[in-house]
Amino acid sequence: MPRHFTHLKDFTIGELDGLVDAASSLKKSAPSSFPLAGRSLAFCFMNPSLRTQVSFSVATASLGGHPVTLSLGSGGTWGMESVEGVVMDGSAAEHLKEAVPVLGRMCQGLGLRSFPAGKSWAEDKTEPALAAFLKYSTVPVINMESAGGHPCQALADLMTIRERMRPKGKNFLLSWAPHVKPLPMAVANSAVEMAAMAGMNVTIARPEGYDLDPEVMARVSRNCAANGATVRVTDEVPQAFDGQHVVYGKSWGSLANYGEPPSSDPVFRRKWTISAEKMRRTSGALFMHCLPVRRNLVVDDAVLDGPWSVVVDQAENRLHTAKAVLLHLLASPAKSSTASARRHRK
Amino acid sequence: MPRHFTHLKDFTIGELDGLVDAASSLKKSAPSSFPLAGRSLAFCFMNPSLRTQVSFSVATASLGGHPVTLSLGSGGTWGMESVEGVVMDGSAAEHLKEAVPVLGRMCQGLGLRSFPAGKSWAEDKTEPALAAFLKYSTVPVINMESAGGHPCQALADLMTIRERMRPKGKNFLLSWAPHVKPLPMAVANSAVEMAAMAGMNVTIARPEGYDLDPEVMARVSRNCAANGATVRVTDEVPQAFDGQHVVYGKSWGSLANYGEPPSSDPVFRRKWTISAEKMRRTSGALFMHCLPVRRNLVVDDAVLDGPWSVVVDQAENRLHTAKAVLLHLLASPAKSSTASARRHRK
Amino acid sequence: MPRHFTHLKDFTIGELDGLVDAASSLKKSAPSSFPLAGRSLAFCFMNPSLRTQVSFSVATASLGGHPVTLSLGSGGTWGMESVEGVVMDGSAAEHLKEAVPVLGRMCQGLGLRSFPAGKSWAEDKTEPALAAFLKYSTVPVINMESAGGHPCQALADLMTIRERMRPKGKNFLLSWAPHVKPLPMAVANSAVEMAAMAGMNVTIARPEGYDLDPEVMARVSRNCAANGATVRVTDEVPQAFDGQHVVYGKSWGSLANYGEPPSSDPVFRRKWTISAEKMRRTSGALFMHCLPVRRNLVVDDAVLDGPWSVVVDQAENRLHTAKAVLLHLLASPAKSSTASARRHRK
Repeated sequence: MPRHFTHLKDFTIGELDGLVDAASSLKKSAPSSFPLAGRSLAFCFMNPSLRTQVSFSVATASLGGHPVTLSLGSGGTWGMESVEGVVMDGSAAEHLKEAVPVLGRMCQGLGLRSFPAGKSWAEDKTEPALAAFLKYSTVPVINMESAGGHPCQALADLMTIRERMRPKGKNFLLSWAPHVKPLPMAVANSAVEMAAMAGMNVTIARPEGYDLDPEVMARVSRNCAANGATVRVTDEVPQAFDGQHVVYGKSWGSLANYGEPPSSDPVFRRKWTISAEKMRRTSGALFMHCLPVRRNLVVDDAVLDGPWSVVVDQAENRLHTAKAVLLHLLASPAKSSTASARRHRK
Repeated sequence: MPRHFTHLKDFTIGELDGLVDAASSLKKSAPSSFPLAGRSLAFCFMNPSLRTQVSFSVATASLGGHPVTLSLGSGGTWGMESVEGVVMDGSAAEHLKEAVPVLGRMCQGLGLRSFPAGKSWAEDKTEPALAAFLKYSTVPVINMESAGGHPCQALADLMTIRERMRPKGKNFLLSWAPHVKPLPMAVANSAVEMAAMAGMNVTIARPEGYDLDPEVMARVSRNCAANGATVRVTDEVPQAFDGQHVVYGKSWGSLANYGEPPSSDPVFRRKWTISAEKMRRTSGALFMHCLPVRRNLVVDDAVLDGPWSVVVDQAENRLHTAKAVLLHLLASPAKSSTASARRHRK
Repeated sequence: MPRHFTHLKDFTIGELDGLVDAASSLKKSAPSSFPLAGRSLAFCFMNPSLRTQVSFSVATASLGGHPVTLSLGSGGTWGMESVEGVVMDGSAAEHLKEAVPVLGRMCQGLGLRSFPAGKSWAEDKTEPALAAFLKYSTVPVINMESAGGHPCQALADLMTIRERMRPKGKNFLLSWAPHVKPLPMAVANSAVEMAAMAGMNVTIARPEGYDLDPEVMARVSRNCAANGATVRVTDEVPQAFDGQHVVYGKSWGSLANYGEPPSSDPVFRRKWTISAEKMRRTSGALFMHCLPVRRNLVVDDAVLDGPWSVVVDQAENRLHTAKAVLLHLLASPAKSSTASARRHRK
């Protein structure tokens, strides 16, 4: 079975730290050889992307590989079916049961970005497109953000924290933020999972109704306990900012009112927008965000333009960690995709 | 005049077999040099694509060239005019009389995908966009599917058959299949033309009103006759499956009711959907389809997931035959496009 | 501060001629080394493109670099905000204050195409997106057409003229042409600015209400005066064609009726469409146009297909001048983007 990079829970903190170490080396100096020479990778986007698209394209090219960026199920292609056994007389013209193996015959690795549909969390949580990629692929698959997680972002975030502090025992606040849309929870999930794995004390500040998925919280609690760290969920802001070393701002949609946007009430918004006043309560915390970010709604200009912000560094680290992930998955001696695919037939 | 790869009828079976031989070598081992180094190719899509887009991108890169994938006349560009002499005060902002020579000055080869418009077969049959590419291009042109044919698919299909049997004298069934849309006839045309050139006995099973274009059928009859093979057109299914060695499933639109979707009557659909029961009547036939395919409408899961299906191998062979076509058209000693273009001026 | 290539006014004619000289060398023979090896460039399109997209992609690859073509603020990404201090609760999901620095961490150069919005010339003239790129970028920025100018086109135009004549003292006519839309003025501005810098006598033939921006005209007058050349604005056609050596055809929208399409009156159109009859009044002038061009509306078939037309050569020269611009901006010894970015951080 091929290696994949799909969820943080499949890795130990030692493995994640190893990837960050590799990324740090690649940040200092370009690779002297081209370990991906002769390999092609297809990065499949079912949703828009800027950092992920550019980072994987540049990372692949810088390692000597050939990146193919695809709009899958939109733009240049047609809708994709992921459910087995259906009569395909609707809008989807191709089943992932064909598309994924086909891409695996032409390319030596695949990436997938697939957001939740936003109708039912129970259904979105099964991550049907990613599950189909994992089921049908004979080559490594990279999760470039699914309903449940964004592990590539979390890896860049871990790297960004480690560049500035030893995370173990430090205080990490995930602070919910207002928005005009009910955003996916993937980044929030991965951020707290990463912080818990890294041994940080985790605080989640969010309004009533914005709890993360219980399975995510169970993993966070387990990892914090194992590390002798604390977990706290609160709606008390700005007090939650007191003593924090890292503030991770992020909006996400409510599980209780799934698919509905947060309140646009100005008082509610102002309570939750991350401000310089709140940041001044911290122990000189870093301000982190995965980007894109809506200024003066999620977070004030004064924070993003102030001494706290490391958001552009996080983004740059997406490039270096992408290289590390590609090397981790693919940097064995080159084999032709055909030969490798053939082993999986019959 | 530059070499082109646009229609099967321009080639002998010996030439097609030569391309398949080259593709088979490239499938076994990557090329040791980079014959397309310093060359760029523009692959122009007027319609969506998955296999064609990825195969030509990866094939070009694997040979050392630079692929440029373009949405032409949609997405990133504007509408293109192909008719000469018109006053361009409508939606088309550029004439192919400019666009094609310009691309030929920047790139050393061009590909074009252009589906029929679906209003008039008489008009679609002239393949206006492809004809304009051939007329105005000073560099090789690859037909990546036109109204009349899909020769790149046929080449991969021939390779897939030859990997499993000596085609001459074997039985080839093209079986029409239900669909929600009136699909182009290109793949159906090229499949039977390829089978006839390869010396197979050709059966076409289709409902009344779904005959292929008479010119295609004339070439099929001529090639079958020259090869001592038979041609048969029938609406008797499942009997048509008896004794077949290859079953090629494909839906296409009716010439009699051009542009209208096939009947959605469940009895009619069930009669024509390709089932395991039908496949069991064959002489252990391969099941072939160009993809994308609508499961349980065109063909049942049991066929695609059963021992008959070679559809993913066909798709993989698109990559290897794409390399062979690129080498056939371009693998002479590199000349700068400028120098080559200059010879065509004045 | 990084070098940029954004407006003609930032360069002397000597510098532009130097870029054309470099482009001419690159047209004669491919570069023997790969000066952009290990560098990536992001070419960001907020509007459609054919020549610009392909020329920069091929130019980058031919110099050993990795081109990333992005639809920014449409297609594969979200809307981009450029105004500082706003509450981002509208349609824009990201601010260029983040997007530009992020791209500069992943890539060693950026290109931007951003057309005017067409509501207010006063606002469009500030070129908000390009201004944001210049303000926030730590790497070189190339203007791939803004509201005010298209310097890459002008460079290719200068090269095309110089391939056929010594421009100084020759007569250059910019002739307005009919269209169905109010087009941007960028190409018209850059064409006359280039001609004036090159020492040509400039005539602008346009209907009442179609004057170019006064600041552009002031620069044209200044440069013509410095070169001992004349400037003339007239609505007298066909007389304006008398004695010209270069006729540059181009439609643009009116500043007086900003955002409104030109009259579709057939007599008006016929007066301004560039015809063979008009071209015969010239001193054997070249006919130039940036493309795409609407045949028989902007210019007659007889001109484009006649001996005057150099429009395809202009387009080819986009490729060679793009290489020259890339080398000008980037061909210092390679530095990692990280190291260079780090210098800009505190």
